[in-house]
Amino acid sequence: MRYVFRISYDGTHFAGFQRQAKGERTVQSVLEDAAGKIFGGCVRIVGCGRTDAGVHARAHLVQLDGETSVPPARLRECFNRILPPDLKVLASAQAPEGFDVTRVPLEKTYVYRAYAAPCTLPLLARYAAYIERRPDVARMREAAALLIGEHDFAAFCAAGSSAKTTVRTVTALEIRELTQNGYTMYEIEVRGKGFLYNMVRIMAGELFAVGFGKEMGNLEKALAGGSRSLIAKTMPAAGLTLERVDCAVRLFEQEP
Amino acid sequence: MRYVFRISYDGTHFAGFQRQAKGERTVQSVLEDAAGKIFGGCVRIVGCGRTDAGVHARAHLVQLDGETSVPPARLRECFNRILPPDLKVLASAQAPEGFDVTRVPLEKTYVYRAYAAPCTLPLLARYAAYIERRPDVARMREAAALLIGEHDFAAFCAAGSSAKTTVRTVTALEIRELTQNGYTMYEIEVRGKGFLYNMVRIMAGELFAVGFGKEMGNLEKALAGGSRSLIAKTMPAAGLTLERVDCAVRLFEQEP
Repeated sequence: MRYVFRISYDGTHFAGFQRQAKGERTVQSVLEDAAGKIFGGCVRIVGCGRTDAGVHARAHLVQLDGETSVPPARLRECFNRILPPDLKVLASAQAPEGFDVTRVPLEKTYVYRAYAAPCTLPLLARYAAYIERRPDVARMREAAALLIGEHDFAAFCAAGSSAKTTVRTVTALEIRELTQNGYTMYEIEVRGKGFLYNMVRIMAGELFAVGFGKEMGNLEKALAGGSRSLIAKTMPAAGLTLERVDCAVRLFEQEP
Repeated sequence: MRYVFRISYDGTHFAGFQRQAKGERTVQSVLEDAAGKIFGGCVRIVGCGRTDAGVHARAHLVQLDGETSVPPARLRECFNRILPPDLKVLASAQAPEGFDVTRVPLEKTYVYRAYAAPCTLPLLARYAAYIERRPDVARMREAAALLIGEHDFAAFCAAGSSAKTTVRTVTALEIRELTQNGYTMYEIEVRGKGFLYNMVRIMAGELFAVGFGKEMGNLEKALAGGSRSLIAKTMPAAGLTLERVDCAVRLFEQEP
């Protein structure tokens, strides 16, 4: 039987989602160890995507195939009794007939957070990157408009990617700015079916660079088949959170 | 010469504000070590109050007496180059004539945060406590009204306090509730000149207990000279943040 799980994790102490040959602590390996205790034997966890080392997830979607007498909705509690505080199952259910998390149409929403302040702020640093100056958000929004839609994002992909094609579709890109308590928080919300390796962090880096005065022309050239070197450097992982994965089918009774 | 500093810290890995005989990592000891490198020799940091182990501060106020050729406003950078990521100086200045952080009239604002959700949430757990059910906020506000003003808070003080008097004044107490992303966050904002050992966390515990249905009578008895045993248990430290310290005199040029 196939089960689906909505999970959440603080990525700080995970070497990313995917199990590593070296035996590092990853989301997949910690989940598979817990699943092994509940289902018995070796259980494989499959995600609808991966997140890099240090990236957080407010709600990620995974599945596993196995047999247990535990009612599907009760699996959440079983997992959460075993899982560490930085990784929890938010909801559990039996997957619909023919469901496959790697094939079902879904939309991912990422938010990249960065704050501008006179110095780094201890209470923000875990979930947001630090930028020294306040960027021009009007310019950032102008650049963001260029990124929306279907493009070849080869210039926004870190080396080492195994993607077959570098064409991706950004369905929405919104930039929010909030000033309070002596700092300004910037949130770049990006939606799409899927993204290339480091793509959201590289996009965020270029948007901030444009906000700091970089010519918009590089971005246009990069989208017209230009190389990675035209584009700003990758922003730190801590600022990125996979906020949610919206699925075409309703999966969980437990969800609000 | 006396200098004042606005500081911020993530309390998770500090054994509280005050230097401990045992040599544990405290805010004071880390600051004094940094100050020793800048001012030379042994420098004593004095705070306008202490926070317990695990409690955070968005903005706390401290002073030190010493001599340096560094301009006061530049001390912030000097400290921040030495300080770890979880403790930073937000602003630095020369103290006004006759200023003493332990005697100047000031008001402290604490916020106690707790969230209700079907399970603990990894991205909230660092700065908020977990409550399993949603409390009745109308009842909590009714109870909060009883706590505002000058009272003998002896029943709201943990054992081991060295306070001369247990009379304190709560100048404001506000409760906010925000539901989003499948959880509800509760914020209890408390203001006053000073608080007893664990007082805000004990008040928060009693307010949630009342929200879960506990009789209001115990709170009334406690304020009329009753004992600690009438009142709910202390809430976890992670949920508490010293949000700011408002001082009667303006101290920092750098502040917004």
